[in-house]
Amino acid sequence: MDIKGFQFSAVEAAIKKPGRKDLALIFTEVPAVACAVFTVNKVKAAPVLLSEERIKTGTAQALLVNSGNANACTGEQGLLVAKETSHLVAAELVISDEAVQVSSTGVIGVQMPLDRIKAALPGLVEGLPSGTLDDIAQAIMTTDTFPKMEARSGEAGGVGYTVAGIAKGSGMIMPNMATMLSFIITDANVEPVFLRQVFRRAVDTSFNAITVDGDMSTNDTCLIMANGMACNPLIISATPEGDAFEALLRDVLLSLAKQIVKDGEGATKFVEIRVTGASSDSDAKRAAMSIANSSLVKTAFFGQDANWGRIFAAVGYSGAAVDQSRLSLRFDDVFMAQNGIFAGGDAEARGTEVLKKAEFTVTVELGLGSGAATVYTSDLSHEYVSINADYRT
Amino acid sequence: MDIKGFQFSAVEAAIKKPGRKDLALIFTEVPAVACAVFTVNKVKAAPVLLSEERIKTGTAQALLVNSGNANACTGEQGLLVAKETSHLVAAELVISDEAVQVSSTGVIGVQMPLDRIKAALPGLVEGLPSGTLDDIAQAIMTTDTFPKMEARSGEAGGVGYTVAGIAKGSGMIMPNMATMLSFIITDANVEPVFLRQVFRRAVDTSFNAITVDGDMSTNDTCLIMANGMACNPLIISATPEGDAFEALLRDVLLSLAKQIVKDGEGATKFVEIRVTGASSDSDAKRAAMSIANSSLVKTAFFGQDANWGRIFAAVGYSGAAVDQSRLSLRFDDVFMAQNGIFAGGDAEARGTEVLKKAEFTVTVELGLGSGAATVYTSDLSHEYVSINADYRT
Repeated sequence: MDIKGFQFSAVEAAIKKPGRKDLALIFTEVPAVACAVFTVNKVKAAPVLLSEERIKTGTAQALLVNSGNANACTGEQGLLVAKETSHLVAAELVISDEAVQVSSTGVIGVQMPLDRIKAALPGLVEGLPSGTLDDIAQAIMTTDTFPKMEARSGEAGGVGYTVAGIAKGSGMIMPNMATMLSFIITDANVEPVFLRQVFRRAVDTSFNAITVDGDMSTNDTCLIMANGMACNPLIISATPEGDAFEALLRDVLLSLAKQIVKDGEGATKFVEIRVTGASSDSDAKRAAMSIANSSLVKTAFFGQDANWGRIFAAVGYSGAAVDQSRLSLRFDDVFMAQNGIFAGGDAEARGTEVLKKAEFTVTVELGLGSGAATVYTSDLSHEYVSINADYRT
Repeated sequence: MDIKGFQFSAVEAAIKKPGRKDLALIFTEVPAVACAVFTVNKVKAAPVLLSEERIKTGTAQALLVNSGNANACTGEQGLLVAKETSHLVAAELVISDEAVQVSSTGVIGVQMPLDRIKAALPGLVEGLPSGTLDDIAQAIMTTDTFPKMEARSGEAGGVGYTVAGIAKGSGMIMPNMATMLSFIITDANVEPVFLRQVFRRAVDTSFNAITVDGDMSTNDTCLIMANGMACNPLIISATPEGDAFEALLRDVLLSLAKQIVKDGEGATKFVEIRVTGASSDSDAKRAAMSIANSSLVKTAFFGQDANWGRIFAAVGYSGAAVDQSRLSLRFDDVFMAQNGIFAGGDAEARGTEVLKKAEFTVTVELGLGSGAATVYTSDLSHEYVSINADYRT
């Protein structure tokens, strides 16, 4: 992957158990145009509070991120640690404190081991020239079972550029924001207002369209930094180059979002939920999310049980406008129900076959209008319970 | 239990697996004042649609209820079955069709075995003089592991009366309405408008204050029938007798609601969630329900992990007004967090001890106002996943 002007480093700072890198740094040699979307949880981690303030400048030059500790519910002390560590990084990099974004993931309510982080920072900065984005993807993992990464190349005015991204997540994945952490970097030269617009739209149809367990984290962050070092002609709105950039960015984010669902805690199924024929797009999303978050639906997926009635029940309490006599439901191409009742024939057997697959689509047609939405989710397994019952032990 | 004028019967109609009673009848010798609360799910079972219409008369004289089949998502045919079976019962009892309430619980989307029910009806009516309320409590069970029943006696004007109730529930338990099915009978002579008021209030603080998995059924029903055969002086609003009746009714409903949570699918813990200091009572309930429905919180309860940060996170995304620096949290009497951060000292060890108990209380103080709410929930265990993955097999 050729992405100009970005450097990477990751080290062990003993925040997590020994033997795993847990502190990472992304640095761009020139200041990048940047914007971010943060959790809307009213209980926000210290790094979120700090980064939210700093991103208002519209630029960033470094990201300091750790796993193993969320630095959430840590009060004034937590905020001091976020400021102090980013200050030390800024000093080493000879940039302003405000140019450093800070991000954390891990257990809530435990103070950060400031001394250990301080001790690790010089080595972290020294490692920059030799690191890779993959190192960062590894270092931000918590209960993730694989690192999540995606990169795509495009061109504008005959000049090539790259958009790359990493993400971590798995439990506590819920829209607004759906990811725990995702960091997107590009060397494309992009007009800042346009970047913000396309980034927002791409987040809405990717990270805000996935759910694993319906919980929402105190730390969710999705950040993009565009440093312009590909030196392509400026990409602006309402041009073929702008459209191409948006499509490419959306592909990267959607790929990362799907990777998060596939790595959902204990997930054995990847399910695409499509709702069509709703009174509005927002109604469609409400219905789709209600299905995707239903424990009864998700356990049925795990059990490979074609229990379509539970899906209708979840649609019924979603808050979306529903006329039960117009509902239809398909597992992939198999109609399980039409006009609100069982489709009959061999639907049961064929539907069950679909649910045995590792990936399938559930399509619910409401028959009321043209509103539509697609969300992605996983099943609810024994393993989910095991992981989360014993998370801190 | 001495409750005048009510008769009970339950039989095997082969709706469920052989060997279990699945069709039941409650009959009052004189028409009863009656009211009911039904699911607000927009996908409603046929018996709910029928009973909702019939209860508008304000009276009822019989309840026909089955387990093993929800008669939901069954369209016109489902409605015909509900009408036909209640018509046959009405004819046998020599009462009007409209006086028969109908209720069903079980699998969704399967047509009812009308012939088997028809065949069982004469025996059901014949059995009336010899049956007990306990028979009904047994017959309405699905994944319940024990029958749920409560009775209390009171007096008005020196005349004794009884309020008794049964319930079934366990999975798919969520407020508005929280119970799958609950039927309350009393021989008290109660003024109809007052009865409706106190019944609504009692449902709000009992069945609408419990949650097992956040799902909401297509069949939820809570019905009360008061036949007046105790012949006490009429119980009316704003009197000591009225207050006493309300307290007694609330006790019966709360006891049944708690039994449902204790029998929550796979539940190993019974947890009372109290939220105080909220901006309003509705904010408090929103926060309490968000905690009670969080998969991450519930798996931590199962794991006996004093992970209070997840509880703060659930409060933060509940929609209630929150100032994270004012939050405090207790497990029973042990302060885990104050002013938004860990309470320190031996809180971790003492909090973990509380979570080892089968029943405990979580108290979250928001520090903003005087709004308060209490809800009841269970943990999320391996067993929950097992039960619901294999429900139909």
